[in-house]
Amino acid sequence: MISKSLIKLIKSLKHKKFRELNGLFVAEGEKTVNDLISKYADANSLFKIHSVMATPDWFKNSKILPGETIELIEITEDELKRISLLTTPNKVLALVRIPDYSLEENFAEKNLSLVLDDIRDPGNLGTIIRIAHWFGITSIICSENSVDLYNPKTVQSAMGSLWSVRVFYRELKPLLRHYFEDTDVPVFGTFLTGSNIYSVKTTLNGMIVLGNEAHGISKELEPFIRSRISIPPFSEKHRPDSINVAQAAAIICSEFRRDQLIM
Amino acid sequence: MISKSLIKLIKSLKHKKFRELNGLFVAEGEKTVNDLISKYADANSLFKIHSVMATPDWFKNSKILPGETIELIEITEDELKRISLLTTPNKVLALVRIPDYSLEENFAEKNLSLVLDDIRDPGNLGTIIRIAHWFGITSIICSENSVDLYNPKTVQSAMGSLWSVRVFYRELKPLLRHYFEDTDVPVFGTFLTGSNIYSVKTTLNGMIVLGNEAHGISKELEPFIRSRISIPPFSEKHRPDSINVAQAAAIICSEFRRDQLIM
Repeated sequence: MISKSLIKLIKSLKHKKFRELNGLFVAEGEKTVNDLISKYADANSLFKIHSVMATPDWFKNSKILPGETIELIEITEDELKRISLLTTPNKVLALVRIPDYSLEENFAEKNLSLVLDDIRDPGNLGTIIRIAHWFGITSIICSENSVDLYNPKTVQSAMGSLWSVRVFYRELKPLLRHYFEDTDVPVFGTFLTGSNIYSVKTTLNGMIVLGNEAHGISKELEPFIRSRISIPPFSEKHRPDSINVAQAAAIICSEFRRDQLIM
Repeated sequence: MISKSLIKLIKSLKHKKFRELNGLFVAEGEKTVNDLISKYADANSLFKIHSVMATPDWFKNSKILPGETIELIEITEDELKRISLLTTPNKVLALVRIPDYSLEENFAEKNLSLVLDDIRDPGNLGTIIRIAHWFGITSIICSENSVDLYNPKTVQSAMGSLWSVRVFYRELKPLLRHYFEDTDVPVFGTFLTGSNIYSVKTTLNGMIVLGNEAHGISKELEPFIRSRISIPPFSEKHRPDSINVAQAAAIICSEFRRDQLIM
């Protein structure tokens, strides 16, 4: 049985304001929550579970360790439907504490990161997190106006990768200016015209900047991008104007990792 | 001013049943409708417009030719909000006649096509259509249980590419069996384990089969797939279980076209 005040809290977490106020967000579905619990068993995990609400069926197979300080609440399918932020609820919903982590110094010198300039669609951010994870990219830096990481749709489309990829929100102009002026770290940016991605010399460190769904990379960031790259269309005449940013991210991550993955 | 019966018709077109009954679907937004109108000027276009409802602002810049037999209705922003199937309506909504087109014989011998086995998410189908268009793939064959092409979310995410890529619904088992038994046409299928996509010898014809979001390619199709291909993760240990099918489609189309696009 779930209390009215808890229902109210969960529903409020649809909104960023209330997520920040309570320091909590909602993670739903068997895959996402089970992945979180496997990670949670790991003492290094940044994500701490506040409570788990699930059907009896889920608890029967759950790997939650006894003695944890997690509130566990058994609920019916109907109750799950009432609290779920998804259209098709799936057995379990967890409230998770928003973690606090910091961007490693020299992150761009050592590893490859993605930089997202005003990504607005939560599904795009989630699938970009998942593809970054697939290709071993563990840091993503978003502009401050980008969609929130803990938006229920972002959490849903990132699936378990949310627990493995670190996402930071930063003012991008000073960050990129610093790397441009003070270092020789490679900074790539995707544009509709630029060097052919299939012939560009890729790197294992640095940053790849991807732009907003409608407007691309903002003008104020352009001066700090060292290499403009582009995915060429098959035909200049018969082609769409652009491709979806999450698909562009997939192709570009694939190209940057290709040399390591080819057998 | 828009009549009550027209509002009722438009709202009913959210559902496949009523799209089929009326032979109509809804296309919305400046980009999508403007692309359709440029195509419509072309006598070969398969898509015929039934009516256009738009704000005065849109009509001012529209390229609709006088003398066309399209019903044009000027509406207010408020009326647009009432009829739109989108969350953020954008100036114009068109009713379009569902076209009838047939799959070219030898399509697989001559060109490369995508085959989608039970894709369920309308956004995935739409973005796959857009990426196919980008990479010059103009035929997609869907299993009969796949999401409908004229679902408003598919139309929205396909954007203008809907007017350029042909999407067919077929029973896949007999189709693939025929190609397997009677031809030597290459048929690739994406699996979690298979030949490394980065080392596979790709072709300019044949078919690439992509599976359902949750279950992959169905068991009954597996025997008719000649080459099992797979996108390797960067690390076997730190990785998600899978990637989104629309992103897999992007990476695979990119790899199949890479040799042609490299400069």
